[in-house]
Amino acid sequence: MLRMYDLIQKKQNGYALSEEELTFFVKGVTDGSIPDYQISALLMAIFFKGLTEEETTVFTECLADSGERADLSAIKGKKVDKHSTGGVGDKTSLIVAPMVAATNMGVYVAKMSGRGLGHTGGTIDKLESIPGVNTNQSREDFLRIVNEIGLCIGQSSCFAPADKKLYALRDVTATVNCLPLIASSVMSKKLAAGSDCIVLDVKCGSGAFVKTVKEATELADLMVKIGTRAGKKTVALITNMDVPLGRNVGNSLEVIEAIDVLDGQGDKDLTELCITLAANMLYIANAADYDECVRAVTKTLHDGSAKKKLADLVAALGGNSDYIYNPSLFKESKISAIIAADRSGYIYKMDTELIGVAAVVLGAGRMTKESPIDHRAGITFHHTVGDYVNEGEAIATIYTSNISKAQNGMELIFNAVKISDKKPEPKKLIYKTIGGKF
Amino acid sequence: MLRMYDLIQKKQNGYALSEEELTFFVKGVTDGSIPDYQISALLMAIFFKGLTEEETTVFTECLADSGERADLSAIKGKKVDKHSTGGVGDKTSLIVAPMVAATNMGVYVAKMSGRGLGHTGGTIDKLESIPGVNTNQSREDFLRIVNEIGLCIGQSSCFAPADKKLYALRDVTATVNCLPLIASSVMSKKLAAGSDCIVLDVKCGSGAFVKTVKEATELADLMVKIGTRAGKKTVALITNMDVPLGRNVGNSLEVIEAIDVLDGQGDKDLTELCITLAANMLYIANAADYDECVRAVTKTLHDGSAKKKLADLVAALGGNSDYIYNPSLFKESKISAIIAADRSGYIYKMDTELIGVAAVVLGAGRMTKESPIDHRAGITFHHTVGDYVNEGEAIATIYTSNISKAQNGMELIFNAVKISDKKPEPKKLIYKTIGGKF
Repeated sequence: MLRMYDLIQKKQNGYALSEEELTFFVKGVTDGSIPDYQISALLMAIFFKGLTEEETTVFTECLADSGERADLSAIKGKKVDKHSTGGVGDKTSLIVAPMVAATNMGVYVAKMSGRGLGHTGGTIDKLESIPGVNTNQSREDFLRIVNEIGLCIGQSSCFAPADKKLYALRDVTATVNCLPLIASSVMSKKLAAGSDCIVLDVKCGSGAFVKTVKEATELADLMVKIGTRAGKKTVALITNMDVPLGRNVGNSLEVIEAIDVLDGQGDKDLTELCITLAANMLYIANAADYDECVRAVTKTLHDGSAKKKLADLVAALGGNSDYIYNPSLFKESKISAIIAADRSGYIYKMDTELIGVAAVVLGAGRMTKESPIDHRAGITFHHTVGDYVNEGEAIATIYTSNISKAQNGMELIFNAVKISDKKPEPKKLIYKTIGGKF
Repeated sequence: MLRMYDLIQKKQNGYALSEEELTFFVKGVTDGSIPDYQISALLMAIFFKGLTEEETTVFTECLADSGERADLSAIKGKKVDKHSTGGVGDKTSLIVAPMVAATNMGVYVAKMSGRGLGHTGGTIDKLESIPGVNTNQSREDFLRIVNEIGLCIGQSSCFAPADKKLYALRDVTATVNCLPLIASSVMSKKLAAGSDCIVLDVKCGSGAFVKTVKEATELADLMVKIGTRAGKKTVALITNMDVPLGRNVGNSLEVIEAIDVLDGQGDKDLTELCITLAANMLYIANAADYDECVRAVTKTLHDGSAKKKLADLVAALGGNSDYIYNPSLFKESKISAIIAADRSGYIYKMDTELIGVAAVVLGAGRMTKESPIDHRAGITFHHTVGDYVNEGEAIATIYTSNISKAQNGMELIFNAVKISDKKPEPKKLIYKTIGGKF
């Protein structure tokens, strides 16, 4: 008979756990038969001793099997999902899902998303900033919407209940930052969500959980291997999170920026990343060769078709799609204030995690799991890394609901942005693609 | 405000926790405000990253302060306590406490003991094998007994409640085997128990928690430093636990063997170790020079005075002291069986942990915390390491209550004893003394 004590000790001594042992562990987490203190002891031992690739793959499948696996067979075409490991200002899902659907190339976007976590935002929260939107659709409605308009965004939180429990424990025991645990957590939900193809956006830099390209590569490699072994076409892009993605951070602010991109008038880097992600989603679903995919998705930003898809999605989820065609309907926050440069020079660096924290402080994210979100709160950057600014020039505008939040948020952003006489070396937007053929 | 999360992360990253942080931790363990899963995560981080000497000392004081500290000021003389880190067949407390008291040199033995743990026995269980003995005396009665007869043995379990809770968690999360946690656990109870002088017997070898002299030295060093910094005269002996101590393992069997030693007719090694321990107890209490202390304690084994002290103790605790003068009163177990050598040769090695497990299986220890003890169960060895035995000769006799326990126990002992053509190198009984001046 397996005993949790022996699993902890085995991992502590650096040995790999067997499939039987990992199954026992995940089953015990799911049914509550293993007490939290033994779970957290094993998680900490894993933090120090790691999991092998084989262990991580098996563990991921066990987590995926801890709840229902979605049956997407009612969708008549290739199903593609997309996931970002979490960044600041990352609104790509709101853009790429409509882009892919708008190409009408037979690829369906059955995207499962989460809420904001720590200093990074979540697609569900962003969508819910549009009045009326309900992402908590029944399985039948979800499938119907995907078949009707080519895309839907649902809540990933219903999948892999063992992962949810483990994540909650990791969150309070300092064991979040562990590659095999991150990889298995992400991929368990993706496997359970049932798409054939998965595009991963692994964020890397000061605003991401993973800070270096080396670490991001390890994580991406691991996730692509897990996906591939599970029979999913999987590709991972490693992308820059040393600056916020785009210009806006905060829920309705990010929807507004997404609409700009869908109008063909978005931030250059953000637009480029969305084209690359959307093209990869089509490409790994065998829609066409890669260049053809790029052309097809780019076209949707100029003919209004992608924007229409977003409006269709909002309407299908019960929301008011007028907001997509007329973003000025979004209410402005009570308070706005400008952060000005205290000296002339180049914006040399932005501590993007600190900017994410500032967004939370302003009200755009949750301080605790239960706290409500202020959908209008956030930050608009008027400049980014590499820009020259004059003393007194506006760097950013913050939006929030009261003076004390405004003061705290401004101070954080002021500390996050470094101005220097030196112009910084430009950084790549996309560092690497892993698992693709290009 | 301190947060447990930050303490875990700090330790995970290899930093030392401050006095304020350790106080916060132990307070939270004691009052239940820190959840078990965070406690076990920190314990596992400590397992991997250790505690500095400074941290260990502060942590020990915090644990000692988590409950009442005994006030022994009513005892009119130096108070000495003695502790063994746990071995197989270790009945020294039953012998040395009466020896010291019998010298009448103004040194009082206020000994706090525990119950058996894992494969090692506990003094409380051994004492309770004598009908009528109650070690759960009130504080007043304990002090009165010490003053009247010069010694008493009480239960250490009332001290350092935070340590008790931590130990219970360590026991189920594979974090028992960690030197700073072992040292702080032992010493917190000794500090709270209130004696001026502490003699530690650090067991080392196959039957002990600590297997090598190097590790035992580290542990002993640490405990002596903690004791000394707390203002206690502290000395540690590192002693051999590669063979069971003496010939008998099991509760009433060990009392019987203790009486043999108190009659001056005990096993040579066991007698020597008891003389050394008892002499150290007197010596660090400044009773006399070391040689004088040795002479004084040795004398008590030949004039019947130590044996009388044990009888006095048993009577003071409500027990029937006739058992001390007439050990044949102890009831025999239902079943006994002989384990014979399957070949001729030297007894080359005894896996002492396995022998401890055999004793538990036979009924002398607890399989779970709640299981009762069979006071009569155990093992008598007729030979020890280095002895030559002929094929078929009796190596040991086991005592138990049913056939299946007998079979399991015999098999374990059979596997634990290795016979070889080669005579083993003799090992030292006492490897080192740490903290003494001799």
